[in-house]
Amino acid sequence: MATLRFQPQVYHNTLGPHTPVAHVSDGDTIITTTIDAFGKDENDRQVAARGNPQTGPFYVDGAEPGDTLAVSLDRLYPNRDIGYTSTVLAPNVVDPDFARELPEPRMARWQIDRARGTATLIEPIERLGQFTLPLSPMLGCFGVCPPGGQAISTATAGTHGGNMDYRGFKSGTTVYFPVFAPGALLFVGDGHATQGDGEISGTGIEISFDVQVTVHVIKTTGIRWPRGETSEAIFTVGNARPLDQALQHATTEMYRWLTDDYGLGPRDIGVLLGQCVEYDLGNVFDPAYTMVCKLAKHTLPARERL
Amino acid sequence: MATLRFQPQVYHNTLGPHTPVAHVSDGDTIITTTIDAFGKDENDRQVAARGNPQTGPFYVDGAEPGDTLAVSLDRLYPNRDIGYTSTVLAPNVVDPDFARELPEPRMARWQIDRARGTATLIEPIERLGQFTLPLSPMLGCFGVCPPGGQAISTATAGTHGGNMDYRGFKSGTTVYFPVFAPGALLFVGDGHATQGDGEISGTGIEISFDVQVTVHVIKTTGIRWPRGETSEAIFTVGNARPLDQALQHATTEMYRWLTDDYGLGPRDIGVLLGQCVEYDLGNVFDPAYTMVCKLAKHTLPARERL
Amino acid sequence: MATLRFQPQVYHNTLGPHTPVAHVSDGDTIITTTIDAFGKDENDRQVAARGNPQTGPFYVDGAEPGDTLAVSLDRLYPNRDIGYTSTVLAPNVVDPDFARELPEPRMARWQIDRARGTATLIEPIERLGQFTLPLSPMLGCFGVCPPGGQAISTATAGTHGGNMDYRGFKSGTTVYFPVFAPGALLFVGDGHATQGDGEISGTGIEISFDVQVTVHVIKTTGIRWPRGETSEAIFTVGNARPLDQALQHATTEMYRWLTDDYGLGPRDIGVLLGQCVEYDLGNVFDPAYTMVCKLAKHTLPARERL
Amino acid sequence: MATLRFQPQVYHNTLGPHTPVAHVSDGDTIITTTIDAFGKDENDRQVAARGNPQTGPFYVDGAEPGDTLAVSLDRLYPNRDIGYTSTVLAPNVVDPDFARELPEPRMARWQIDRARGTATLIEPIERLGQFTLPLSPMLGCFGVCPPGGQAISTATAGTHGGNMDYRGFKSGTTVYFPVFAPGALLFVGDGHATQGDGEISGTGIEISFDVQVTVHVIKTTGIRWPRGETSEAIFTVGNARPLDQALQHATTEMYRWLTDDYGLGPRDIGVLLGQCVEYDLGNVFDPAYTMVCKLAKHTLPARERL
Repeated sequence: MATLRFQPQVYHNTLGPHTPVAHVSDGDTIITTTIDAFGKDENDRQVAARGNPQTGPFYVDGAEPGDTLAVSLDRLYPNRDIGYTSTVLAPNVVDPDFARELPEPRMARWQIDRARGTATLIEPIERLGQFTLPLSPMLGCFGVCPPGGQAISTATAGTHGGNMDYRGFKSGTTVYFPVFAPGALLFVGDGHATQGDGEISGTGIEISFDVQVTVHVIKTTGIRWPRGETSEAIFTVGNARPLDQALQHATTEMYRWLTDDYGLGPRDIGVLLGQCVEYDLGNVFDPAYTMVCKLAKHTLPARERL
Repeated sequence: MATLRFQPQVYHNTLGPHTPVAHVSDGDTIITTTIDAFGKDENDRQVAARGNPQTGPFYVDGAEPGDTLAVSLDRLYPNRDIGYTSTVLAPNVVDPDFARELPEPRMARWQIDRARGTATLIEPIERLGQFTLPLSPMLGCFGVCPPGGQAISTATAGTHGGNMDYRGFKSGTTVYFPVFAPGALLFVGDGHATQGDGEISGTGIEISFDVQVTVHVIKTTGIRWPRGETSEAIFTVGNARPLDQALQHATTEMYRWLTDDYGLGPRDIGVLLGQCVEYDLGNVFDPAYTMVCKLAKHTLPARERL
Repeated sequence: MATLRFQPQVYHNTLGPHTPVAHVSDGDTIITTTIDAFGKDENDRQVAARGNPQTGPFYVDGAEPGDTLAVSLDRLYPNRDIGYTSTVLAPNVVDPDFARELPEPRMARWQIDRARGTATLIEPIERLGQFTLPLSPMLGCFGVCPPGGQAISTATAGTHGGNMDYRGFKSGTTVYFPVFAPGALLFVGDGHATQGDGEISGTGIEISFDVQVTVHVIKTTGIRWPRGETSEAIFTVGNARPLDQALQHATTEMYRWLTDDYGLGPRDIGVLLGQCVEYDLGNVFDPAYTMVCKLAKHTLPARERL
Repeated sequence: MATLRFQPQVYHNTLGPHTPVAHVSDGDTIITTTIDAFGKDENDRQVAARGNPQTGPFYVDGAEPGDTLAVSLDRLYPNRDIGYTSTVLAPNVVDPDFARELPEPRMARWQIDRARGTATLIEPIERLGQFTLPLSPMLGCFGVCPPGGQAISTATAGTHGGNMDYRGFKSGTTVYFPVFAPGALLFVGDGHATQGDGEISGTGIEISFDVQVTVHVIKTTGIRWPRGETSEAIFTVGNARPLDQALQHATTEMYRWLTDDYGLGPRDIGVLLGQCVEYDLGNVFDPAYTMVCKLAKHTLPARERL
């Protein structure tokens, strides 16, 4: 149960079979930093190419293809005082004949008060004045090495995770990834000080982060998509277009989880999900959209495994 | 500000230009009943054909095409002690190659304890035993006469409302519909004692309801899709497939609302929705899926009109 | 085998249970006219509201719900010398971030030379000069009364037909519709002098038509979507969004046809469709998109029924 | 204008920045072989892992990011006498509630008569007996190195080409790819003796090929998706889900081509595509579906460049 303090020197714009920056073991904690989606570090200096550059990969000793990598998001928090957002909705989230109403892209800057936990617009924008929001820090893009020797852009997402932009990836959540490559190869990046559902302007409040995570290797087979767990709920993540398909992936993965680990039968699942399921929306901006299938723990029987 | 107590004799399986059952005026309250999605009344007797048979339509005097009909959902509550659900997920919410894993459709019955506010499975289903859920009553299918002289099945939804199966249509919510026909022609039906997001087994806990609503005619133009409001939030509703398009409709409608009634500019909206929007899922079972675009009132400036 | 010559006086903008304009019998031929999508007749006079106004409905004696109505498109031809098209692509057929590149809608006029079978742009448009195309007349919107007492806008399509805008609906093709209402209630309208796949500018060359069709009632059950037949091929039609779903409907309907009428088994169908199927695109402009699943007759065994 | 005869020793299951197997120059011809989708060579021996293993990559000297690589498909022909197909439709091409009707996957074998140009089922399948089809050889999966250092599975497709399964990729067609990496890095594989539209059983008649292609480097900027050309037509290719989006990509790419190389204005394009465009369907089986936007050359003005 060691702690690795790691200061990144290089960043990756794909998740793939890159040379590991460090080795960790089951139960270890990693304390590191991430730069923002545009490649800017905690001093707001450009240190990597834009597009969710990733810290890592971390090689988790003992993780083999077919295993599950559990990543506890211990602490995610901005490490600088300035954040950036787009000020324009993405054209794909409005009606096609309305898209021409959208103005030209332009960025806004936010003052981050880390002590008080707020973000405040620096320049007024049209009628919104000194608009202030509470921080709700989350990781937009992170995951493991994809299957089949692929290296996949940090612009998109898949079974390996990637750019999911889900508000639920915050401190206190544990995320489970299928392991596709030896060592799993964990990547982290793209912190958001806060973000609306769907990331429909194409950004959260983009900012560099201090990140602390703890990893465990689980010798369980059967996980095909990212899963997650909080003190209150379990959830599964589907990444695809259209949203209908992302929802199919997430729902099927939840079905398998309830079957394999909770011993539920098909009609149990029909009743339980039919009357209790919740869906959360990750991004609807990237090439793959993200849908989350969630179930409150108090509706569940005791877990039989995992 | 009269109160109409109305006991339905006939029910409709389309929302369309049907003969009104009663006239009401701006500010009036309607107290009536609805039968369940299968056509069974408060005595569990079959009194209409299955498929969300509707009570109404109610002709609202003074409502003209181009106006908005506000429908306050004052009180929605089951009026019998038995409810029905499917026990099988819909094949369209799982991966296509997983659909064959689903068992044959069969129904389950629930005991409704209206005093305690709970629903309990009557027969055990596989591992789920005496499974109990709190009631969260909502209207699955309701709306107004569609545009252009259409009569549209209660199986689906559109700009006129219809079968949206959104958990947010509960007591305390006000719903706004575009008026397409003189008198608006309000229909109500398809009560659910509770339901998961997406209505992914094709049913909530289907049950007959006591319904009390209050109607207002608003001489505001510009509303194109159903909208809603609670003490905490405003929301818009898009009905279409795929979900991507339902989300486009709902987001565009919210954009128009923020422009027309809150005086916000396009970049205000980009920032506000980008960082604060929430999406809720109505059904992903019917021919048209339902997506809800929601914004907390505390993020909003003062409303300028409506 | 009578021939009905019918001159329409009223037109419908929905397909629904409207009062029949005439009765015909199995084997009868109907000779009538249709007005263009904008409601203009053979003299280019506005005689009905825009939106594919329909001639009919014709009540086919003996057609009962569950039967099939065969409609032979004997002759479809423009009956005036002027046609209209949009000059701008629909925003939904280009990338969302490209939609703002499209100019404002404006119409172009075409001179129709019925003797030579050509259409020529009347005014030059940018670089295209006196652009001439061969006529390929087809019906954009036609069908029967929808199921369940619905009246559905001529803007869209469903199991009853409607606005499909498929180039294959031309002289010599026989179309099969499921019968949902007594008498089937046949509607015809929306002639195009020619049209590209997808109707991606939202119009063909819109024009009024002389129409001759012959109807037969087939006491076959099992047809759920429109089907068609030429001397060379059989085809099925799915109407839905997204195109993926329209394709699913059309393919499933073809699967049923091959099973029911050709006696093929599931692996026969897998091999035959897998290696021989063709897909044609109807419109991608309307609320429901249209996909056609087609199979050349020379690949088929002898038909066992129908 | 040299000719490279290349016998592959290794194969790739991703298109990515792999070590080139050979260098060629502008105007050179490559004569090589491909193995089938299952990794079997001309002797029906397993020589690589299944999943469209690729021959290559070939480094084209002088090709730089931003250029266009033209690949003339000079000759594509089976080089063995046995081919394989699935006998079952993919569950994603039928209605979700119909998917359970599909039988278990099983393969069929075909005897290829290369002299006569036919494929004949070896074992009878249900009612189809000695079923024979004409050969129509085509490449299912080929392309160049993807952008951004990605390595993308041969199961899917993107702007770099990949697994498109389009019947139009046959002898006589020239394909244009955007160049994303120095040398372009051309891959070829996945020959089909013939195939239906959509590859809806998940296979064509899978077989090893002799392949002859000629490459040219074009210093033209602006191409974003694969394009193609025959003696009769030009076409563009979009790869995405749902089909609606693949169609948007292909149509937008055609719009750009008509603007950049044919000097057409937006209304020219609206009229020309609106009345003359054709769409062909590539696969609807892979993670990304493929739609082709095609225009007959006789409808086009003279090309101004390329």
